[in-house]
Amino acid sequence: MRVEIVTIGDELLLGHTIDTNAAHLARELAAIGVEIVRRATVGDAADDIAAAVGDALERTAAVITTGGLGPTADDMTKPAIARLFGRGMYLHEPHLEWLRERWRTRFDRPLPKSNEQQAMVPEGSTLLRNDHGSAPGIWLEDERGRWVAMLPGVPREMRGMLADVLLPRLAARGGARGAVVRSRALRTTGIAESALADALGDLASGVAGLPLAYLPGWEGVDLRLTARGMRAEEADAALERGAAALRDRLGDWVYGEGPDDLAGAVIGRMREARARLAVGESCTGGMLGARITAVPGSSDVFVGGVIAYDDDVKVAQLGVHAETLRAAGAVSEPVVREMARGTRERLKADFGVAITGVAGPGGGTPEKPVGTVWIGLDGRAHGDARRFNLIGDRDEIRRRATQAALEMLRRRVVRRG
Amino acid sequence: MRVEIVTIGDELLLGHTIDTNAAHLARELAAIGVEIVRRATVGDAADDIAAAVGDALERTAAVITTGGLGPTADDMTKPAIARLFGRGMYLHEPHLEWLRERWRTRFDRPLPKSNEQQAMVPEGSTLLRNDHGSAPGIWLEDERGRWVAMLPGVPREMRGMLADVLLPRLAARGGARGAVVRSRALRTTGIAESALADALGDLASGVAGLPLAYLPGWEGVDLRLTARGMRAEEADAALERGAAALRDRLGDWVYGEGPDDLAGAVIGRMREARARLAVGESCTGGMLGARITAVPGSSDVFVGGVIAYDDDVKVAQLGVHAETLRAAGAVSEPVVREMARGTRERLKADFGVAITGVAGPGGGTPEKPVGTVWIGLDGRAHGDARRFNLIGDRDEIRRRATQAALEMLRRRVVRRG
Repeated sequence: MRVEIVTIGDELLLGHTIDTNAAHLARELAAIGVEIVRRATVGDAADDIAAAVGDALERTAAVITTGGLGPTADDMTKPAIARLFGRGMYLHEPHLEWLRERWRTRFDRPLPKSNEQQAMVPEGSTLLRNDHGSAPGIWLEDERGRWVAMLPGVPREMRGMLADVLLPRLAARGGARGAVVRSRALRTTGIAESALADALGDLASGVAGLPLAYLPGWEGVDLRLTARGMRAEEADAALERGAAALRDRLGDWVYGEGPDDLAGAVIGRMREARARLAVGESCTGGMLGARITAVPGSSDVFVGGVIAYDDDVKVAQLGVHAETLRAAGAVSEPVVREMARGTRERLKADFGVAITGVAGPGGGTPEKPVGTVWIGLDGRAHGDARRFNLIGDRDEIRRRATQAALEMLRRRVVRRG
Repeated sequence: MRVEIVTIGDELLLGHTIDTNAAHLARELAAIGVEIVRRATVGDAADDIAAAVGDALERTAAVITTGGLGPTADDMTKPAIARLFGRGMYLHEPHLEWLRERWRTRFDRPLPKSNEQQAMVPEGSTLLRNDHGSAPGIWLEDERGRWVAMLPGVPREMRGMLADVLLPRLAARGGARGAVVRSRALRTTGIAESALADALGDLASGVAGLPLAYLPGWEGVDLRLTARGMRAEEADAALERGAAALRDRLGDWVYGEGPDDLAGAVIGRMREARARLAVGESCTGGMLGARITAVPGSSDVFVGGVIAYDDDVKVAQLGVHAETLRAAGAVSEPVVREMARGTRERLKADFGVAITGVAGPGGGTPEKPVGTVWIGLDGRAHGDARRFNLIGDRDEIRRRATQAALEMLRRRVVRRG
């Protein structure tokens, strides 16, 4: 099955809103074997909507739209597409009743007049249930089998309705009987693309008949295997074989899969080891702690930390010696080692991890340019420190620093203390 | 001037990458009076690229593409569009020399054979200088004046080239002589949409002939004025008048404009007041500190903080009484007041701000459901605490908590201590 996507809204066309719906739709549809041929975005004008949907219907006879189903006058999707199909609009009484009931029970007031038009739908259309908001989706199909599925633009509503209603409908219609596009991504960090390729040897460009893509970013390099042109079960089996082969070659370089965050992997390992963690942060200012505590349940492992931005705080709260700061400077191996030890001891944790660096844009010197970051890790038995030269702007350097700190922890925590 | 945008790449079409280029292009072009009529996305196949660009040329005779200019075999933009224009490709010797030089000096090795194709360009095209990467942009125009501007897909390169080369070229061609679309957004927080409308009175739906849009998000409600159909100077003057009138009505509810972060506004006020700040964070785990230190130069104001995730850290590092924790619970007014005072005193700051709450998904109770957050603010002269009931998932509740804390600080810091 081949479809086109048309996303609708002045906000999107003028760039005030980034179109996240399009990517979500594409991924979900590809996974059930629906091929996206082209995607278009138009503003809220009825003529532009009709033109874009009409063009798309000519090519694929199957179109999914998002947006323009709301209660205001600039929500023109339904009448524009009804006209394209030569259909009128009528008031859908059951939906009007539902809307009235919803306003009574949820907002404790009567349905505003302006919202009544949400119950107007094209003749001969099917309503797609929306359990996540007040605008139903619309399915409109003509006698030749050409169809348009209209989904709301609010991402939460669109995603919900896609999963609840549209994907099952498309699968039943034959999407899932054809070839699918599915992928899996293994996550690595601290190793360059070329080194990964070397480690993979003969698997460097693909495995199990699947091509391998290298996707570098601030978190590291993701390795994505993609299965195309297979049926769903074949694709899943090939991906399973391929992922196992890659993991076998790369061993502990792989810290997770898909959307896994490294912080989650670290917390998992520390929980198993019954180890408790504290952080001491200078240039990252709390970002490492924020990232760790973004993981629900991190309180099993994470004690807390000290944001030692000012040198006085490094001395008073972490026990860094003023003399060490004077002699070596705040961004140095001796200071980060003292920070890490102070973090562990003062917060009574098993591991203390500390970060101090030059995040920029100011503050760089020839010896310690912007991007110079020292990370220290202190366990009961021994301490460790590494210097990193990180690239990017202030935000990226800080994010990369949290990643490097988490990776040092992940590598370390298997051998406890 | 009317243009269409075609963004190119399997990554985009399959939804593995979110298309941020399209929104950036749209905003920048609208600001110089170039109207975007439609936007399309296609994969890397040459036929699909040619079809989408050809369709767009029929409508507007002016098309901007992004992506598909790289060195690999799936980068098909140049040959596909050359063929559409009936042009061949040739090796651009000066660019080849430049590429060789770049590899010698930057990567210290010879240009790989596969990268030589980056110097192949359509006959009769003009190279658009790229100071941000190795693939030049291409301008291709036919005898009828129909043109395609091809930009790279890497956002940093695309943005640089757009600003350096393409916007000036389009402005010179007449974009800036026509009507522009420009907007300004005033930022508010802690006040609901309906309360803003009440405060604005007769300006609630627009001012200075400009419509007013209310854009709610986790940071608060932005008020956006948009000028359309005016020349650039008129638009700027109307926006200036409109923004001044809104600020006049709303007073201190407006904390900034455009992309300003509230943390920057707080740091600015504190710098003026020569006040120093420390944070004590429980449920936000360092997120408030990270947000403050994201602002370059925040070290003038920000001392540091304590991430008091575990209750033992609240006691040992912030001097919260174990008895207070037992009696009132960690998420309570007495605890947040003690946290804020301990933060100020122990970190030797003028203000201590503390956050403790239930971020979820677990941990809620009937009395303190998920989203219950106490924020405390302690100055030398007096302390303050407020309870918030924040909505959203774990991440959003935490972000909203940092926003509420910053807003309490911003309101407070004018009257010192």
